[in-house]
Order: sequence, then structure tokens, then C-alpha cells
Amino acid sequence: MRERLVETLRLHLVTDSALCGERGVLAVVEAAVAGGVSCVQLREKQLETRAFVERARALKAWLAPRGVPLIINDRVDVALASGADGVHVGQSDMAPADVRRLMPGALIGLSVESLAQLEAAEAAPVDYYGVSPVFSTATKADAAPALGLAGLAAIRARTARPLVAIGGIHAGNAAAVLAAGADGLAVVSALCAAADPAAAARLLSARMG
Amino acid sequence: MRERLVETLRLHLVTDSALCGERGVLAVVEAAVAGGVSCVQLREKQLETRAFVERARALKAWLAPRGVPLIINDRVDVALASGADGVHVGQSDMAPADVRRLMPGALIGLSVESLAQLEAAEAAPVDYYGVSPVFSTATKADAAPALGLAGLAAIRARTARPLVAIGGIHAGNAAAVLAAGADGLAVVSALCAAADPAAAARLLSARMG
Repeated sequence: MRERLVETLRLHLVTDSALCGERGVLAVVEAAVAGGVSCVQLREKQLETRAFVERARALKAWLAPRGVPLIINDRVDVALASGADGVHVGQSDMAPADVRRLMPGALIGLSVESLAQLEAAEAAPVDYYGVSPVFSTATKADAAPALGLAGLAAIRARTARPLVAIGGIHAGNAAAVLAAGADGLAVVSALCAAADPAAAARLLSARMG
Repeated sequence: MRERLVETLRLHLVTDSALCGERGVLAVVEAAVAGGVSCVQLREKQLETRAFVERARALKAWLAPRGVPLIINDRVDVALASGADGVHVGQSDMAPADVRRLMPGALIGLSVESLAQLEAAEAAPVDYYGVSPVFSTATKADAAPALGLAGLAAIRARTARPLVAIGGIHAGNAAAVLAAGADGLAVVSALCAAADPAAAARLLSARMG
């Protein structure tokens, strides 16, 4: 079970529609999955609900036959309406226990930005943690201070749950992040801003061993 | 059934936390209900999800024993997590058919800003329409042009569903809006910005006959 989950979480694309640009989120997702992305998190902080649901459905329709799960950032309503596989919540989003009640079978991820947050979350019904930011990043304006590889390793030492590292991760540091204890990597810029997201995903996959 | 629904929708408070100010949304709701408000719609466009759920639960806990329904603007996730009685959606929010699927027993309201939108919505699973804006208003930055009493009357002529009029409504024009065909009135500023929301609600109720 955990093996299967870790495999699913291995290379996680978190979308950023501004970085995806004119080619659109779906085109970037298609290319990134072709290059080896194992899980897609749709994150939309500006989109109105109806458009968000439509985008989630388009992604789900494309991802489902390929066996790649779709996770929705924050919005349980969008996840329910689109038939997504899971929800990723931050510390200010819906509490994991509430998400679990509304989506009993969903994959639930929670962002933790410190050891204290990790410890507070261990009793909550969470399937994996997004550990962030490992390195400093320009993608998320409200990000906490970078944890560094040592901070990631300290979190690794305190939980048996799968860890997906995020924040400033690219092909050049992927192996070091895994060595520090991450089960999977989540990337935004390294794929969404790539001229060739398929090639960028292949390179990342290759560096993950 | 329709009688009961219309009674419920008769005087509808739509919250605006900025206008409620330091006294807070719950205090304004309490005063407005004491003054005769029959239905409360919690509208939060800035609040993060966890805080939105917490506010919705606090309102629901206070309203439920008083038999006053709580309707959540836009967010089905917040409505589900808080046990709210309904959801009010705009044209860019979740489609009514999707809301109905996720909340089969909920009260579903839809904003319509023109006759064309009304006609397009008649086949959708909607319990009432919010007809807006009847008069021009500063409360909603993205509001469509004012319909006026004639526009409201034209919409009234085309549907049997209950109509809740919103936009620039106050004690001074309440009777005219009802005479033009509204079943209920929804107010934001006239209650949220009132020095004494209970007195303001009593005055509105009195003018509604």
C-alpha cells in the first residue's frame, strides 16, 4: 500500500497557469506526464469556481485513462465536482479531518513548513506531507523560510508517512533531496516554465534514479 | 412548499465582513436576526478556507436553534463542512446541476442579472433566483448594470420560481421592489453598514408589510 502510494507520489507536477503561459495548463500536463510525471496537482488561486471545475474535469478526463491521479489544491468542492483523486491542503485550507469526512476515499496531502507543523499533524488523517519549501522559491509569494536539506532530514526522522519535497527543486538537486529523505519530488517552475516540459520531466526522472 | 420557501427567503441578509467592521459578522447577524432577518447568506471572498469554515460553523451553531437557514455564497466545500442549509451561486460559480449533485437536499440560489440568464437557468435545479442588481450599488464591484423595477418585473413575468431582489435595496424602496414582483429582499449595506442592524432590520420588515 505504502509502496504503491510512494510510487504514485514520486514525481509530482504542481501546476501554475501563469508559468504555463499561452500553451495552457493541459498542454503542459500532457507533456510532463509523457516525460514521467506520476501525479498532477491542479493549483488555481485566481480562477473562478466554474472555470476551475471545467479545467479539473479536462485534466481528469486526460489523466484517468493513463492511471495518473489528479489532486486539487485547497478546493474540496472542485475535487468533488470533477471526480479528482485527492486534495492537497495547506495549513490555512480545510482541516484534513474535514476533508476526510467529505472525501473518505481521497488521497489527502498536507503542507508542512516546520517540524512543529509536522508534529501537530501526525494524528490527522493525512496520506502524505508536502514538505516546503526545501529551497527558497519565487513561485509561492507567501512561502515560509527554506528548510534546507537538514530541515527535510529532521522532518524525515519524525514521521513514517510519505514526504513529497517542494520548493526550488530541479534536476540539479533532485538526487540530494531524495537522499535527505524525500519519497517524492514536487515541482512547479522546473516543469511549468520549461520550454520543453516533457524533456524536463525525463531529465528529472533520470536524476531520481 | 413554495409558501414556506418564500417565507424563508423574505428578508435575506448577505454578509460583508468589511462593512460589518470591528463588531464582526456574527454580531451583525445576531442583531439582524433579532430584528427580523429570515435567512442569512455568508459571503466571504477574501477569507482562507479554514477560517471560512470556522465562521460558517459559528453562524450555523447560532442560527440553527432559531430556525434561520444559513446559505453559503459560492463555496460548496464550506457549505458541506459547516452543515449549511444551502449555497448561493453566481454565473461564474459552480453550475447549479453540480451543486445539486453534491448537496441533494440543499437550498440552491442562483444570481441572474438579465432576462437571458433567467431563461438559460429555468431548466437548472435552482430553488430561487437572486435578481441583481435592482438598483446600482457600491457593494459589489463587478455588478452588472442595474435592472430597475421594470427589469425586475420583466423577469417576474417569465418565471414561477421565487425571486429575491438584491442591489441598493433599503427601507425606502422595499415596498416598491416587492410590488414589482420580488418574493423577498436581500440586503448587504442596509444591514451590515447600519449603526443598529436590529433596528434597521425591524424597519425593513415593517416596510415589507
